[in-house]
Amino acid sequence: MVNTVRFTITTTGQGDVRDITQEITTAVASASFGDGLATVAVVGSTAAITTIEFEPGAVADFDRLLEQLAPRASQYAHHERWGDDNGSSHVRAALLGSAITLPVSAAQIVLGTWQQVVVVECDTRSRDREIIVQLVGE
Amino acid sequence: MVNTVRFTITTTGQGDVRDITQEITTAVASASFGDGLATVAVVGSTAAITTIEFEPGAVADFDRLLEQLAPRASQYAHHERWGDDNGSSHVRAALLGSAITLPVSAAQIVLGTWQQVVVVECDTRSRDREIIVQLVGE
Amino acid sequence: MVNTVRFTITTTGQGDVRDITQEITTAVASASFGDGLATVAVVGSTAAITTIEFEPGAVADFDRLLEQLAPRASQYAHHERWGDDNGSSHVRAALLGSAITLPVSAAQIVLGTWQQVVVVECDTRSRDREIIVQLVGE
Repeated sequence: MVNTVRFTITTTGQGDVRDITQEITTAVASASFGDGLATVAVVGSTAAITTIEFEPGAVADFDRLLEQLAPRASQYAHHERWGDDNGSSHVRAALLGSAITLPVSAAQIVLGTWQQVVVVECDTRSRDREIIVQLVGE
Repeated sequence: MVNTVRFTITTTGQGDVRDITQEITTAVASASFGDGLATVAVVGSTAAITTIEFEPGAVADFDRLLEQLAPRASQYAHHERWGDDNGSSHVRAALLGSAITLPVSAAQIVLGTWQQVVVVECDTRSRDREIIVQLVGE
Repeated sequence: MVNTVRFTITTTGQGDVRDITQEITTAVASASFGDGLATVAVVGSTAAITTIEFEPGAVADFDRLLEQLAPRASQYAHHERWGDDNGSSHVRAALLGSAITLPVSAAQIVLGTWQQVVVVECDTRSRDREIIVQLVGE
């Protein structure tokens, strides 16, 4: 069986990391089956999905790593071609990936106690982000 | 239901990023179901799958990031053990991941307007790459 | 159909990369179906799953890349907030991702000849790691 849940969050721009574990937990609990897979995807090429311990220190450390890898103020070929300012956003998102798939067991998403699913906004401005939770199981 | 589509592309070597969205769209459209998951995997340990806005600027920026993280000309223990020259390929591929899973909804892969699925060739020479699109749904 | 296999490995701490391909192969072979998907997930926020050619050179190169990206001895906000020492572990795991999904075809996981599935221990101490192999197919 396949169940689909969609929701939208509004981010504040680059550096905004949002915990969406509660939305996923609710989606999984309302599914018509108890065991299977949950794919969580953010639509677009300048945001990413991963898991992290969602506490301000680890989130700040992760943002600092991304800024070190792909500085916002650096030169990007994407800027020169399109007059855009979000080259850092595209390469960060491509590095992290736009989706994650996790097991669903006994009607719960399988995560550690200190592990949350997050949307990592990589774009340089506020965005409305559509999230899809696709549930497949029996 | 499970549907499998396989195809091969020939890459030119490190830095070759290939848009395979059309092949995936065709595979999904020909599937015997409309809602579920599509796993796209490249077989082998020196290539990766991700999504990016497939335009030359963003692709060049992404290639530059990978070269910065794992320079092709650097020293690698893999070279010393095997007389090989693709240590940079192995670590880039391990960092990015060899597969992605995305939702399928109404017989379409769910992607943003400016978001494409790509094979990132990390090896130092031309390779024939087998891609598998595994579709599971109802 | 959905089949779940769980197992635990004990790691030695940061830098320990463990080949779990045999365990996955066994799980897939014992499944009640031959075609579908295998999601391999490690529970927790300081370990990751990826694929690599599992030979000591490539593994050492990959560990060196992770140490370069997020040095263990660096300053982390996570340390200041929690008196902890594993800030590098959290950002490494968030960068790599805690799960991978691969195709299952003819009762075998689809991998290259020189490609293995590994658990990348990112934590600074020995950990018992629960791995879940969630199999969905027909």
